[in-house]
Amino acid sequence: MKPYKELSKEELLACKAELDAAYKEAQGKGLHLDMSRGKPEKGQLDMGMGLMSALDVDCDMKAEDGTDCRNYGELDGIMEAKKLMAAVMGVSDPSKVIVLGNGSLSVMYDAVCRSFTHGVMGSTPWCKLEKVKFLCPVPGYDRHFTITEHFGIEMVNIPMTSTGPDMDLVEKYVSEDAAVKGIWCVPKYSNPQGISYSDDTVRRFAALKPAAADFRIYWDNAYAVHHLYEDEQDEILDILEECEKAGNPDIVYMFGSTSKISMAGAGIAAMAASEANLNAIKKSMSIRTICYDKINQLRHARYFKDIEGVKEHMKKHAAIIRPKFEAVLAVLERELGGLGIGSWVKPRGGYFISFEAMDGCAKNIVRKCKEAGVTLTKAGAPFPYGKDPHDSNIRIAPTFPTAEEMVEATDLFVLCVKLASIEKLLAQ
Amino acid sequence: MKPYKELSKEELLACKAELDAAYKEAQGKGLHLDMSRGKPEKGQLDMGMGLMSALDVDCDMKAEDGTDCRNYGELDGIMEAKKLMAAVMGVSDPSKVIVLGNGSLSVMYDAVCRSFTHGVMGSTPWCKLEKVKFLCPVPGYDRHFTITEHFGIEMVNIPMTSTGPDMDLVEKYVSEDAAVKGIWCVPKYSNPQGISYSDDTVRRFAALKPAAADFRIYWDNAYAVHHLYEDEQDEILDILEECEKAGNPDIVYMFGSTSKISMAGAGIAAMAASEANLNAIKKSMSIRTICYDKINQLRHARYFKDIEGVKEHMKKHAAIIRPKFEAVLAVLERELGGLGIGSWVKPRGGYFISFEAMDGCAKNIVRKCKEAGVTLTKAGAPFPYGKDPHDSNIRIAPTFPTAEEMVEATDLFVLCVKLASIEKLLAQ
Repeated sequence: MKPYKELSKEELLACKAELDAAYKEAQGKGLHLDMSRGKPEKGQLDMGMGLMSALDVDCDMKAEDGTDCRNYGELDGIMEAKKLMAAVMGVSDPSKVIVLGNGSLSVMYDAVCRSFTHGVMGSTPWCKLEKVKFLCPVPGYDRHFTITEHFGIEMVNIPMTSTGPDMDLVEKYVSEDAAVKGIWCVPKYSNPQGISYSDDTVRRFAALKPAAADFRIYWDNAYAVHHLYEDEQDEILDILEECEKAGNPDIVYMFGSTSKISMAGAGIAAMAASEANLNAIKKSMSIRTICYDKINQLRHARYFKDIEGVKEHMKKHAAIIRPKFEAVLAVLERELGGLGIGSWVKPRGGYFISFEAMDGCAKNIVRKCKEAGVTLTKAGAPFPYGKDPHDSNIRIAPTFPTAEEMVEATDLFVLCVKLASIEKLLAQ
Repeated sequence: MKPYKELSKEELLACKAELDAAYKEAQGKGLHLDMSRGKPEKGQLDMGMGLMSALDVDCDMKAEDGTDCRNYGELDGIMEAKKLMAAVMGVSDPSKVIVLGNGSLSVMYDAVCRSFTHGVMGSTPWCKLEKVKFLCPVPGYDRHFTITEHFGIEMVNIPMTSTGPDMDLVEKYVSEDAAVKGIWCVPKYSNPQGISYSDDTVRRFAALKPAAADFRIYWDNAYAVHHLYEDEQDEILDILEECEKAGNPDIVYMFGSTSKISMAGAGIAAMAASEANLNAIKKSMSIRTICYDKINQLRHARYFKDIEGVKEHMKKHAAIIRPKFEAVLAVLERELGGLGIGSWVKPRGGYFISFEAMDGCAKNIVRKCKEAGVTLTKAGAPFPYGKDPHDSNIRIAPTFPTAEEMVEATDLFVLCVKLASIEKLLAQ
């Protein structure tokens, strides 16, 4: 079929009539599907049930250094958990890792909150500053943006490219504006586009020359081992190592967790940073808590044993969710290929497919889907303040429903994309 | 023996000579004992190992309402955990309870931090205020005071009485000074004195008329079921209910956890408050986290089943730690009874014995103990800024060492109390 933009008004109207009929029919089906949630499906969770018996009533509860994991102590986590999480996050030195609670979002929140209330390694607390800004590669993870918005931090959109954020812009802002205190990054299989930062991008991050001494890169390595394929896997450089090489050891905070490896919301979270950063963080952490849940740390370390255990486990996850991604991509390709009304990247990992509609169509598509029984992530959500300047991006989350449901949902989705695009073209 | 104060100088000197010799001998023993740590001993932790097999590889991971505890969701905890923690904390209405992470200290920190960054139910954030004050019943829990100190909050000492804090003073400060935003309370088996608030005290708390709308009582119900005896148990009124009756439903935040019930640092924590408070808190919590560890919540609910399960469990704890308390008390009574150089309360529960030495002697006693191999909690620790205005209070933590070790340590302790007291009397 011809690209929509080359169709005459009559052709568009004819096409619309057909699509309207199809949409009406779809509405009659009583669909009730949800493509909005970036959460694992039951099968993935079943895969991890061995974790429940990794510790039992008779077992030795001592960590490898003799620490009784059932008692208070070890603020920054047990060594075997540090080693495991270092390997998961691709950090070569486990002594740069601390292991914390059940998820990484709160670790990131606390990192921002601590800076707001007490500053960063001796800097002025952000609550005392007139203006604090964060750079936000877009589209990105809505919950990152919600944290910075919550603290009144002004967010600046940075466009994503196929190799990561637009680094010319990042360098310019970071080096010129001392109000810029951070940038949110999901460097591997980014949420929502599935883009992994190139080596050049990582090195340019490591070599930043910030105007603000309390500037940090908030490196959310959320999908470090979340490959969809065995033969096509992205790898990114260890930014901690690159920062050290660049003489910038303190510039980055890395975050990670097993939330989408073991159990969602009941995994273990980790943070990696330079010794100076960790010392400052631990000092503040020691006021907030005596220790995190070391028993769950031990459970994870015993169950997975090492990174090979994690990789084997993630292969099983991939086998479950890959068909769903492929089902969505097949429908998109078949129905929208060549029409010039949308683009998408085939991700090699992560949890999402990012769809780029014609400008001004995203809200309309999401609304149409909703009215026919398919819930998508709210249009605009992947942008600061929920505002997509082009109203074009839509995040698709294929993991939770079944592959069959994803096909049904995507069939409706492409129908809505076509309809919204024609409406847009006719209105021009 | 006569009270020391009635001894002549010669008698004191003679006594001192004997004690010096005994102290020298004690120093030669190479003791290495620790009475400083308010943590459970191994036997208590062994008691709870059933928890490790409360969930296993084949078990149903659904909460009673069908929630899959392995996936994201349920920000404020699963219902069976709310019911359990309500019963543990003595809160009649489980809907006023939310269940959170692995310990209550971080819940209290977050409550203060949230008020600092964003205010309390719409009030001005404390970081924007010139002055914020907290009332601190003393002696009290050092980690409470560290939190308020961390946020630059001015702390005001409130003397404890045998029925709780001096309520005349509390009422005066709270009603007259709008800078007073909170008071730290451990209402049952208080840390370190083991005092439980009388019904009258609780009702006076509930009836407070604060000058500040964002004043809250920070009610750390840490030792709610931590009785030492079956036949002599303290019970306190449900402050949430009393506050409602008094027309003050929003005035209190209650905190609790199973850290000293199940596993220290790997239990479940809870907070109880009015619906209006909880709604405000959950709104802020939802930015920080998607959910807490529901699997550990389910594990606790399945293991303990209900409050009867908890009570049975705590009887076993009491059987382990009661002999240690009694060993300490027996030595204190035998060696110091009638000497007029120290007083103590026999606690019916909790984790500590609080010793009140002669004014100006606490630091000296702690130092002398240390130099002979027995570590005590730092003198002054149970006071804001670590400053005991009378230099008289010493906290003894009998739970972690064995009863034999506690006897050995207390033998040295009473020797040091006698020596320090004589030194003080001779210097007068």
